[in-house]
Amino acid sequence: MKVGILGGGQLARMIALAGYPLGLEFIVLDPGEDACAGLLCEQLLGAYDDQTLLAELAAKADVVTYEFENVPAEVAAFLSARTAVYPPPQALATAQDRLLEKDFFQQLGIPTPPYADVTSLQQFTGVMAQIGWPAILKTRRMGYDGKGQAVLRTPEDLAPAWQALEGAPAIVEGFVAFKREVSIIAARSVSGEVAFYPLAQNLHNKGILRVSECCHGDALQEQAEGYARRLLEALDYVGVLALELFELDGGLVANEFAPRVHNSGHWTIEGAQTSQFENHLRAILGWPLGDTRPEGFAAMVNFIGNNPKSEDILAMPQTHLHLYHKAGRKGRKVAHATVRTGDKAVYASLISQLADLASRLDDS
Amino acid sequence: MKVGILGGGQLARMIALAGYPLGLEFIVLDPGEDACAGLLCEQLLGAYDDQTLLAELAAKADVVTYEFENVPAEVAAFLSARTAVYPPPQALATAQDRLLEKDFFQQLGIPTPPYADVTSLQQFTGVMAQIGWPAILKTRRMGYDGKGQAVLRTPEDLAPAWQALEGAPAIVEGFVAFKREVSIIAARSVSGEVAFYPLAQNLHNKGILRVSECCHGDALQEQAEGYARRLLEALDYVGVLALELFELDGGLVANEFAPRVHNSGHWTIEGAQTSQFENHLRAILGWPLGDTRPEGFAAMVNFIGNNPKSEDILAMPQTHLHLYHKAGRKGRKVAHATVRTGDKAVYASLISQLADLASRLDDS
Repeated sequence: MKVGILGGGQLARMIALAGYPLGLEFIVLDPGEDACAGLLCEQLLGAYDDQTLLAELAAKADVVTYEFENVPAEVAAFLSARTAVYPPPQALATAQDRLLEKDFFQQLGIPTPPYADVTSLQQFTGVMAQIGWPAILKTRRMGYDGKGQAVLRTPEDLAPAWQALEGAPAIVEGFVAFKREVSIIAARSVSGEVAFYPLAQNLHNKGILRVSECCHGDALQEQAEGYARRLLEALDYVGVLALELFELDGGLVANEFAPRVHNSGHWTIEGAQTSQFENHLRAILGWPLGDTRPEGFAAMVNFIGNNPKSEDILAMPQTHLHLYHKAGRKGRKVAHATVRTGDKAVYASLISQLADLASRLDDS
Repeated sequence: MKVGILGGGQLARMIALAGYPLGLEFIVLDPGEDACAGLLCEQLLGAYDDQTLLAELAAKADVVTYEFENVPAEVAAFLSARTAVYPPPQALATAQDRLLEKDFFQQLGIPTPPYADVTSLQQFTGVMAQIGWPAILKTRRMGYDGKGQAVLRTPEDLAPAWQALEGAPAIVEGFVAFKREVSIIAARSVSGEVAFYPLAQNLHNKGILRVSECCHGDALQEQAEGYARRLLEALDYVGVLALELFELDGGLVANEFAPRVHNSGHWTIEGAQTSQFENHLRAILGWPLGDTRPEGFAAMVNFIGNNPKSEDILAMPQTHLHLYHKAGRKGRKVAHATVRTGDKAVYASLISQLADLASRLDDS
């Protein structure tokens, strides 16, 4: 059984690493000569919209999945006509567009921060009266890790932010005074079986995820699962999905969802009985989903910009290194480390050491 | 950093799977078109003694290791002249020859079952008076999984067993009435750092390992560690080593050692903080050794002869499937499953289910 993946970065790499023990083979399509998944499986080298390569991918793979949500709709359609493609292209289309995504949350009764479509500078100015200050202007498409965003603190910020869009469709979102950022990783199989991981509490800085901690037994688990379940069912979803949420005084509101394995689920590699990567494969292959229960205290710390020295991480007990085989570059995710331990004090100390190490390597 | 491996079977495959997260690359040399490690790294296809390929392996790899102990001495010497080779060739030479191995145990004060060199049918007959009945005749070289062995129950068995050797050097070993078969996986790094896993209790059938269970806190742990430490130090060993032992009324006696990662250590993939495969890599690269502590109750069950149906294993909680991507064949190890759980009753039930499943697939 061969799985095709659009994209050959670290997520594809970790999917393949999870899938080899299940007897699977992998093939990735990626334009990068140095795509880090290409080291451990066959790589088709070329553009994501190269129809010759897409046809080859579809012909060689029993099922195709992807590691990023910005797959063009026509690529998803091209592949779907030739082989099984999971998650479903409809989930891609929704997640790719912040306006469709927010509207979809609203239709499903999942609360969101205040938001509005922005269509002209005049309408933008008017709509800010409802959204309130501060707010954030985001392109509807192609933003990730805080890119394509502008913070709006005063009316003077509106015109420059509008001009910087250069006509790109955008939405404005009100800031919410959140207590925590959390996410839930959910999986739904071809058979309709559903599984949820414990909530992760996420720490972002400059729009990039830094730390995710597993929150076993969190009081908001049930609410998060309810929202994620609505998404999975409404999209007839297959695969792993990540729903990012803000905790406010009144409960959770949705920020966005990612129709794929997600950085805030990397703690599951060692920290849960079954990793998000393995469960993504089980889901798209119609196999029984694996146990999502955590193992003790578990968390993940990202390394951004520069790779850590391996020995520094390997010397730490109950800590696991994950290098992506990527060269360091400003703002680039190049590695993470996970912690798994039954001892709460050890856990706190290790996370603190890792976060400190990561911040010293971080030039973002 | 690139690691070369002589042999591209499941052990090489699991070494590579453990090493990718550490940012390593791999290259294997194996004569098999279908070598299962070749799916996930570069493979040099050819004989183990092909000097052109060996030179290429040595040139491309920063360090070379192996997945089987029957590497010809001249191959080890050829590679050692060109790159770092771990474990040291001396360990290979000793482990390859049952007589040298037993003599080495004796020199180190590690007790063994009674044994003797066999040099002629007449001498063989005479030596049986000291060894006692029953006993087992083993070729000095190239035996594994019970191959190259003959059981001796009566004097009538001697002549046919001797003739079946066809002149191959052999030793005879007395049976010992053991209570348990156990093994200890030990690691020693380039820096001299040493680590030991908890004893595994092993169940063999027809000379092939079937089940290994982690025995955390076993009363014989200290004795086993002492013996393993003597081996590691006497050989100036680097890498993972497995020492197989019998438990008798008076304590442990050594059966044999394997200068490599070992089937009885597969439970460590999920069952210990750091797997034997990762620790082998850490050891040969001079990195700090990883935590060997077990996670709850852990064990491994082998699948021999036929691959299990994936869904059957994946439906079991707290159970992890490891297919080697090998076709089924009588007596061939094709897969294993591990169990890791904090619940002793669940553990016992899962092991029993897996062992039952494995026995039904087993045509050895």
